[in-house]
Amino acid sequence: MSRGNTIPFQRRLAPVDFSERGVENLSIGEYLIQRLMDYGIQDIFGIPGDYILSFYSMLEQSPIRVIGCCSEDNAGFAADAYARITGMGAVCVTYCVGGFKLTNPIAGAYAEKSPVVMITGSPGVRERFNNPLLHHRVRDFRTQLEVFEKICVAGTELNDPLVAFREIDRCLEAAARYKRPVYIEIPRDMVKVVPGAPYEPSISPPQSDHDALAEAVQEAGDLVRRARRPIIIAGVEVHRYGLQDALLQLAEGSGIPIASTMLGKSVVAETHPLYAGLYEGGMGREEVTKFVEDSDLIVLLGTFMTDIDLGIYTANLDPRKCIFATSEQLQIRHHHYHGVLLEDFIHGLAEQRLDPPPRKVPPLPPGWGDDFRLKPEAPITITRLMARLNLELDENTIVIADVGDALFAASELVTHGRTEFISPAYYTSMGFAVPAALGAGVARPHLRTVAIVGDGAFQMNGQELSSIVRLGFNTIVIILDNKGYGTERFLHPGDFNDIHPWAYHKLPEIYGGGTGYEVRTELEFDQALRAAWEDTSAMSIIQVHIALDDVSKALRRLAEKLSKRV
Amino acid sequence: MSRGNTIPFQRRLAPVDFSERGVENLSIGEYLIQRLMDYGIQDIFGIPGDYILSFYSMLEQSPIRVIGCCSEDNAGFAADAYARITGMGAVCVTYCVGGFKLTNPIAGAYAEKSPVVMITGSPGVRERFNNPLLHHRVRDFRTQLEVFEKICVAGTELNDPLVAFREIDRCLEAAARYKRPVYIEIPRDMVKVVPGAPYEPSISPPQSDHDALAEAVQEAGDLVRRARRPIIIAGVEVHRYGLQDALLQLAEGSGIPIASTMLGKSVVAETHPLYAGLYEGGMGREEVTKFVEDSDLIVLLGTFMTDIDLGIYTANLDPRKCIFATSEQLQIRHHHYHGVLLEDFIHGLAEQRLDPPPRKVPPLPPGWGDDFRLKPEAPITITRLMARLNLELDENTIVIADVGDALFAASELVTHGRTEFISPAYYTSMGFAVPAALGAGVARPHLRTVAIVGDGAFQMNGQELSSIVRLGFNTIVIILDNKGYGTERFLHPGDFNDIHPWAYHKLPEIYGGGTGYEVRTELEFDQALRAAWEDTSAMSIIQVHIALDDVSKALRRLAEKLSKRV
Repeated sequence: MSRGNTIPFQRRLAPVDFSERGVENLSIGEYLIQRLMDYGIQDIFGIPGDYILSFYSMLEQSPIRVIGCCSEDNAGFAADAYARITGMGAVCVTYCVGGFKLTNPIAGAYAEKSPVVMITGSPGVRERFNNPLLHHRVRDFRTQLEVFEKICVAGTELNDPLVAFREIDRCLEAAARYKRPVYIEIPRDMVKVVPGAPYEPSISPPQSDHDALAEAVQEAGDLVRRARRPIIIAGVEVHRYGLQDALLQLAEGSGIPIASTMLGKSVVAETHPLYAGLYEGGMGREEVTKFVEDSDLIVLLGTFMTDIDLGIYTANLDPRKCIFATSEQLQIRHHHYHGVLLEDFIHGLAEQRLDPPPRKVPPLPPGWGDDFRLKPEAPITITRLMARLNLELDENTIVIADVGDALFAASELVTHGRTEFISPAYYTSMGFAVPAALGAGVARPHLRTVAIVGDGAFQMNGQELSSIVRLGFNTIVIILDNKGYGTERFLHPGDFNDIHPWAYHKLPEIYGGGTGYEVRTELEFDQALRAAWEDTSAMSIIQVHIALDDVSKALRRLAEKLSKRV
Repeated sequence: MSRGNTIPFQRRLAPVDFSERGVENLSIGEYLIQRLMDYGIQDIFGIPGDYILSFYSMLEQSPIRVIGCCSEDNAGFAADAYARITGMGAVCVTYCVGGFKLTNPIAGAYAEKSPVVMITGSPGVRERFNNPLLHHRVRDFRTQLEVFEKICVAGTELNDPLVAFREIDRCLEAAARYKRPVYIEIPRDMVKVVPGAPYEPSISPPQSDHDALAEAVQEAGDLVRRARRPIIIAGVEVHRYGLQDALLQLAEGSGIPIASTMLGKSVVAETHPLYAGLYEGGMGREEVTKFVEDSDLIVLLGTFMTDIDLGIYTANLDPRKCIFATSEQLQIRHHHYHGVLLEDFIHGLAEQRLDPPPRKVPPLPPGWGDDFRLKPEAPITITRLMARLNLELDENTIVIADVGDALFAASELVTHGRTEFISPAYYTSMGFAVPAALGAGVARPHLRTVAIVGDGAFQMNGQELSSIVRLGFNTIVIILDNKGYGTERFLHPGDFNDIHPWAYHKLPEIYGGGTGYEVRTELEFDQALRAAWEDTSAMSIIQVHIALDDVSKALRRLAEKLSKRV
């Protein structure tokens, strides 16, 4: 154990408000900052580099706080988590050597619909004559833009002052509307350029086709009214579009139970009496699977039909009894409505009188509540670790699960609030949790963040704990240490799944802050978790030695499904 | 200080030789492995993941050794360094979550002409019907391929057995010919498919236009014979195309001195009597700049004209007295020859009788040889650190310099052999050195590798030291600890250049091996370096505290140039 000093974390006061100056007096960089603030961004993650330094200096003078990270890819994950919690996130890096490190987190944000604004510097427009080999350049000056056009929903290079403001608005609006990442490149000689032309942002929010909406809501309402055993499956878009209240209004008004997908987990408090559990086909708890698949009407709201959400296609949802509404489509049984917004559809349904017969949701499994009993000398297992952790969760906790059993086992946790369970449950990029915990800490410094991560994932990029120490967050990082890539051991045995062991619990000595614990038994885990929870002054690392063959039931089932395909 | 156990490193014997079986009996995966071996690849870096596990199992049964890394981006840098040393490198990862982490190292390999073969798994062809949301997928199944087509010289998806072997040959040949990275994607259901068709690799190596070559060599020879003060500037392509012997034959046969560019550094032993020094325009040592620019004929061989090689365009090379030959072009004064290969041009010149008057090359600066005198109590500076390190270098040392002053200060080291100085001197991606040291250790386990890296770069990805410990290499890592991004402090002051301090010297306790040193004075550095050099059993970390404003002369000059452009 070690303990170091930490720097107190305070949001600083705004030194500048660009909006008072009038848009025609703003430079391109200032306008971008103003618009980011308009979308609620108070913090930007990143690393400075020479092609973005002017903009960094401008940010430093702005109300937006710059959160320096150890590496750009981590900054991307932090911005992603921040976006999931606050509605939009941003990351700011230099050209190519910074930007290309964001490919993976931006791809993840695209795949899982997280509105991250990627801001990157680049060589100045006036430096590009004669096509010189400026450092960091790869193929030509547009290469980075062309790469990110593949994995962003909108992208721009602000090389023309006349249209720069409009381009900024177009990209930010696309991020807000589609909940996907966007790419904004500022050549370094454009940051301080004042276009000087009059400009009025004109953004027309999308609207539903009135008649299609009315017909769809009527048809869906009729189906619910005729149903005997309806259920809602709520997905990630309910988080992204902030539709939790509408969902609750619909469920509570009608008494329809709610299940969630893995990516949608914590869309409602899982202690809610209408919450039926996590639906993931053959991977999930049997009673929940049975409850969902026994339903005679399934209203899927904002769900992605991913392989993992569907238990690698072990789900059994008959389209003839499904209503499938997302931001991209509305399908009732086998026909489609065009031009119906997800939010309008949910609100429309919630306003109808729907009174299906009440259904009793499956109870929590034994051992996941007050009936948990410690077996002090027993080696700690993943399942028992989660059951013990579950006792600590409350409305002030954010749980972030990494990939593998960190995710599958954590799916059994009973969350108490909204957007308090965050994971890369579709894109499944290892190493998400620790930098995401930084992002969560910045977004919600007064909540307690718990990151659960495998040892293989931690070795990828766990050094972002350093930033958590620097900012003085009381994050708890639980490292599931099975000396290797545990999920893959089931899929495909081989020496390549073993990794070098680390003394993770000694990392506080490297970073000069926080406390480390090393545990093997249930009692040791109990004591460490208790101490970590009581310590609100700094971060804690709990290194949990688990047996090499210990896995959650969900992972065992998933590994069996996956291994048939490899 | 701490010391742990290490695992002895031994190259294992080949259990299988596919070539005995006849090409028509090989599966696509086996053919790829065979062809990698034909190109000299004995080791592949990477991380397993479900879409690539079948191929990993096949690799494990092959003579090729799989080197597991902490993260895919590090595996990419390791493969890049391996490629620079051995002629070709390879990295093998899973789809998207693995592949996209290679964007930055592959972009760097493209920019600096390093032939890295990127092998990636992907969903099986038969899994793609109906366009399902398989985990790791981003936009569509081709997204990863489309991204890497932007930053590779060739790419393929092996989805058709009939042409798979030809596609493999096309990509590997492109890597060998153009010294750039290539992309090979294997859908996981294609790995074991045996095309079964007869196939004969038919590769026609490129040839020079005979008449153009003869005329060019004659004209260049005449220019040299008329010159009074000719010089050769040798660049990175002399390394990449293995032309060091031809270069030496030309220089020694004619007595023409050789300067090198930063990216070309160590192209000849810098102790060679004809070696004039590193030419980098206004950034370099004055006497070398003057010597080069005073020449009346400058023969540039295999140089990239990058901004850093040219001292941010402070170089002063009059095209009217230049011969500029690379793998891509041959320009003499203001006219061009097409179809002349670099190697043929150098060999052709070397075979001519050229006897320009002898020139005396600039001497080493004082303090860089036997006249080095320790000032025991003096705080260690970057320049003095390099001068002390310089005394240890011999033909069995590889120096790897990271970006910033790790690079600029290290440029003054006097290397003793070939390809023993490795750095990302054009793409300048921070965090190259530690994973590259892993790659160098794998490629040349019997040499001593010294990695010099700034603290900011180390925090990005220094955890690859763990793999160095695991493999038992005696790498020495020197961390220049100035608590921030030192180069940028000169470019653009701001709090964002400061980073969280780490106790780097305690990392051996985390990784369970190696020895850490923490030094502040010249005596402490001398003692630590001596102890590290004598310890051939395991890696050493030397954490060197340097003043925040201490920089090399080259960096000071460069920062001044760069800051004028920001």
